[in-house]
Amino acid sequence: MFSAGHHRILSLLGRRGTMSRTDLAKALGMSKASVSLLVRNLIARGILQEEELVFGQGRPSVMLGLRSDAASFVGVSLQDDPATVVLTDPHGRVLARHVFPRDVVSETCLPALARAIDRVRVDASDVAGPLAGVGIALPGFVSRDRRVCLASTALGWVDVDVAGGLESLTDLPVFVENDANALIVGEQLFGHSGDCPDFSLVFVGNGIGSAHIINGQLHRGHHGGAGEMSHSPIALEGQGALPCRCGNRGCLETVSSLQAIRGAARQAGLTTDIAALSALAASGHPEALEILHRAGAALGLALAQLVQMFDPSQVVVMLDPALKESVFGRVLRQEMETHVLRRAGTQTILHLRAAQEDSFATGAASLAAHQFLFGNDMV
Amino acid sequence: MFSAGHHRILSLLGRRGTMSRTDLAKALGMSKASVSLLVRNLIARGILQEEELVFGQGRPSVMLGLRSDAASFVGVSLQDDPATVVLTDPHGRVLARHVFPRDVVSETCLPALARAIDRVRVDASDVAGPLAGVGIALPGFVSRDRRVCLASTALGWVDVDVAGGLESLTDLPVFVENDANALIVGEQLFGHSGDCPDFSLVFVGNGIGSAHIINGQLHRGHHGGAGEMSHSPIALEGQGALPCRCGNRGCLETVSSLQAIRGAARQAGLTTDIAALSALAASGHPEALEILHRAGAALGLALAQLVQMFDPSQVVVMLDPALKESVFGRVLRQEMETHVLRRAGTQTILHLRAAQEDSFATGAASLAAHQFLFGNDMV
Repeated sequence: MFSAGHHRILSLLGRRGTMSRTDLAKALGMSKASVSLLVRNLIARGILQEEELVFGQGRPSVMLGLRSDAASFVGVSLQDDPATVVLTDPHGRVLARHVFPRDVVSETCLPALARAIDRVRVDASDVAGPLAGVGIALPGFVSRDRRVCLASTALGWVDVDVAGGLESLTDLPVFVENDANALIVGEQLFGHSGDCPDFSLVFVGNGIGSAHIINGQLHRGHHGGAGEMSHSPIALEGQGALPCRCGNRGCLETVSSLQAIRGAARQAGLTTDIAALSALAASGHPEALEILHRAGAALGLALAQLVQMFDPSQVVVMLDPALKESVFGRVLRQEMETHVLRRAGTQTILHLRAAQEDSFATGAASLAAHQFLFGNDMV
Repeated sequence: MFSAGHHRILSLLGRRGTMSRTDLAKALGMSKASVSLLVRNLIARGILQEEELVFGQGRPSVMLGLRSDAASFVGVSLQDDPATVVLTDPHGRVLARHVFPRDVVSETCLPALARAIDRVRVDASDVAGPLAGVGIALPGFVSRDRRVCLASTALGWVDVDVAGGLESLTDLPVFVENDANALIVGEQLFGHSGDCPDFSLVFVGNGIGSAHIINGQLHRGHHGGAGEMSHSPIALEGQGALPCRCGNRGCLETVSSLQAIRGAARQAGLTTDIAALSALAASGHPEALEILHRAGAALGLALAQLVQMFDPSQVVVMLDPALKESVFGRVLRQEMETHVLRRAGTQTILHLRAAQEDSFATGAASLAAHQFLFGNDMV
């Protein structure tokens, strides 16, 4: 559909927003004539548009950007029940969304996904560009070619050919990815970290997921297991290490996950609602404070370990908005900063970001958008 | 000196040992005629040689390899006092070695290095090929271009232009690198991990250093601080976290480093000799056992964190031979394996390797050898 030259322009605009022809030529090391030719073709095909004039020295520059109706992308999150499906534009703006019961029986799940995809496709038909592909984010391990779910404890799946099955039902290209990996690709393409060559993302849910971009590429690990922070050990034996569902003791998720926080609150006879628990802590309730303090401190320690070992430019932590504003967020930051070796002016930046309802589904859509903009340079 | 085509052949032979012209052509995606032409030139220049015939189906293959006198490389380790300098061949074999007092005054240190380099150069003049470059491994942070020591607590150096100073004294290209980074480049080029696209290396000395190869490249981290495992926090506050020389508490090096082990032994009134302490533990001495057990367990926990977060294909731990054979080595392995999420057939492999006297100096030499074989594709 697009040539390598087209993809070089599209991928740059996808990451940077708007650029002039002169800036594109400079950034890509191409002649201005070649860039102009490619741009003319992309404008004629309804992919790019001239957006605004920027006045500086000399002639004003015409800025180019991706048209929001250049294409659209479906993202499905199977992270939670109910599942979520969104349809986004190339900037990651959600044009339609739909939630539906998560069916874990793979034979019936895929037809249900196909119906949900049809639904958002119809809902957004007035505003959306041509549908270019589907991304699926799921909790579990996915094959390197982004087609098969190798294993998912949460879904009970082993070797499910999600892409193959859904492609035959929808006739659309399908890309499957681990949930944390989808989230970081979304952050890179649709978020604020597009030009950042290496950063890490951590999300605090019922588990603790993480993912890493290294040299601009998603780092999957040798066996596809990078980012399994949930089961990173946080306490030495005999230091009050709690048993974990994975069979080990002292995993990070036994202290810092939403499930662990709710479990500790329940045991203390407190509310298991995170917002209410955060409010209790803010009012000075000692047990609520203790639970959130301990959970935040353990995650801060794990982040310090990450920074000491891999030194990313930034770490983005996505978490419940109430948790972000609570003592959990403050202790997390403090503990991480305390335990990272101090060197003037060379610190990893920590961003706490409130998780949005559609974060995972939008991340899933970014997988298809990435393929559309970058071509086969994806995996 | 070499063309890009030469470097493609040299870098492949450097990593793989010997290959036939047919295998080279296949691996490089070049025609056999082009490969033969480049190889003929490299043989004429005394860089490659025909080594052996391999008999399979059809005509026997002539295997090609780097001549051990194709070039030689100097490696200097400033990791310890005394400092070590070696001269190696392109396979990492040490042809000459010399130890000399480590001078930390940079004005006199560089002339002392130049004299030490002259010494090994003369000692190996009978067997060594032309000297192609010098590598320096030092404890501290080094600029991305491998020229300047930005900061070294151990040497008391800030912004010392080691490469510039030594190049003007020796007229040889000089490459400076952090000690752990030099070690992993040596392991990749001279060791057993050449074809391994991602692996981690950890060494247990007076600190705990580590380094990572990701996608075949050294991972320096965004601020050059990747691998600072020594100051990775290992214990939650109030879990007996000891103060560390960095100003924090509970750093890995306060438990697992040689310095920490010796300190704990001294406090218990035991020998501070690692081999003697290991022998005591082997004979069942409860306090010696306790010290080595705790040190090994903490490092195993840190390795599990590394594996959970980044999933390398293998982790190579270089350590004192006595420590390797002691309860330290066994508990280290056990603790790591216990805390890594189990997935059938997809485990990171742990290699414990006895540190050699010349490991750091040989690693330093590999920096220059890498440049010779790979060209500017180094940083």
